[in-house]
Amino acid sequence: MRIGQAIDIHQLVSGRPLILGGVSIPHDQGLLGHSDADVLVHAIGESILGALALGDLGKHFPDTDPKYKDIDSMKILAKIYEMMKERKYHVGNVDATILAEKPKMAPYIQQMRQNLADCLHCSVDQISIKATRGEKMGFVGKEEGMVAMSICLLEEECA
Amino acid sequence: MRIGQAIDIHQLVSGRPLILGGVSIPHDQGLLGHSDADVLVHAIGESILGALALGDLGKHFPDTDPKYKDIDSMKILAKIYEMMKERKYHVGNVDATILAEKPKMAPYIQQMRQNLADCLHCSVDQISIKATRGEKMGFVGKEEGMVAMSICLLEEECA
Amino acid sequence: MRIGQAIDIHQLVSGRPLILGGVSIPHDQGLLGHSDADVLVHAIGESILGALALGDLGKHFPDTDPKYKDIDSMKILAKIYEMMKERKYHVGNVDATILAEKPKMAPYIQQMRQNLADCLHCSVDQISIKATRGEKMGFVGKEEGMVAMSICLLEEECA
Ligand SMILES: [Zn+2]
Ligand SMILES: [Zn+2]
Ligand SMILES: [Zn+2]
Repeated sequence: MRIGQAIDIHQLVSGRPLILGGVSIPHDQGLLGHSDADVLVHAIGESILGALALGDLGKHFPDTDPKYKDIDSMKILAKIYEMMKERKYHVGNVDATILAEKPKMAPYIQQMRQNLADCLHCSVDQISIKATRGEKMGFVGKEEGMVAMSICLLEEECA
Repeated sequence: MRIGQAIDIHQLVSGRPLILGGVSIPHDQGLLGHSDADVLVHAIGESILGALALGDLGKHFPDTDPKYKDIDSMKILAKIYEMMKERKYHVGNVDATILAEKPKMAPYIQQMRQNLADCLHCSVDQISIKATRGEKMGFVGKEEGMVAMSICLLEEECA
Repeated sequence: MRIGQAIDIHQLVSGRPLILGGVSIPHDQGLLGHSDADVLVHAIGESILGALALGDLGKHFPDTDPKYKDIDSMKILAKIYEMMKERKYHVGNVDATILAEKPKMAPYIQQMRQNLADCLHCSVDQISIKATRGEKMGFVGKEEGMVAMSICLLEEECA
């Protein structure tokens, strides 16, 4: 067994869609980034890379590479899944938190979990997504950005 | 085995008691919240919910519900313990950190651990609580709020 | 098995060297602290203390003790390794993240991992170090400080 953790941070700006866990969420601002800036998928993906000691997201998917411009981050996660599979590991469980002042995430959580379970070839019960607010403090609380944090437990395949 | 993580954030205000890990701590400010705002107990409780993929604290204990007004957060944690037990899991270990600029937490840590161990029906050795400062930076460092972070390892009961 | 987590925070100031994971990194600012302020080594060390429920770094290595003035934090980590060994645990894996706006960490990551593996008597594959930026937000993004976060999985020695 191996464990991994990650934190990802993106600015909120006008004129961008808000995509979290592969779900388009109606909101007056979206996350800024080279890809679709899905902060939740980035954190979960990087926690898997971390558990496998493969380096960070930027090492594998540099934000200077035009190939990843506006890419659906689920495609990045699918590649990370392949890297995990090659090394004979699978997801035990993932637990992640979205830090965002607005909007309410509750209506979208179940769909995010389903998207992530589909991409990581595991069951929805193995994927937990939670949300909390910044309580008006810091850049999350002032609605300048969002943060996602993730940990994961990976299990080695039995021979 | 399953792992969980959580982060909780509360504002510091005058005229509220400071309660952390079920211990009343003498201080000129306290944490603002619907319940007793015990940021440490919230983080630990939510990390257990996260490990079990049961959703976040707000889903189970909404801060709009008058039932939870000024509630002792240890009562919330006791309910989370029951949810864990029903699913046949128990605490392997919990490791949490309080981020607070002041006051010194060291004199209260042992009592917090005992309170948490009692509530989670485990030994004090299975509960770790640490404290660190914001080094004058951010809302923690400027004494505008406190943060708690927790991870937990849960073990399935043997049949 | 036991898991641990930690977060460490230090201010960036002029006139101090920047040492991360035991590597001296050329930069116009360094981290402020009583020891060499190696925020990464502190976070990793405290996550090991946390997994063992031994208390925080400040309890064992108080920043008021002249003995630890400007000390190489690798010496602190070596002491934590001895504490872990006495209790018959060893590192399963460590996964850590450096939050820093600048400089680029990629050229130094492999040496940091080697230093940590040497100090913790494990293989480089058991040590993961990642880096991410604050995206111009908060004290990390404004280059006022750095943060490191770590989790670890410890395994008990077989009798
Ligand atoms: Zn990202
Ligand atoms: Zn709370
Ligand atoms: Zn430190």
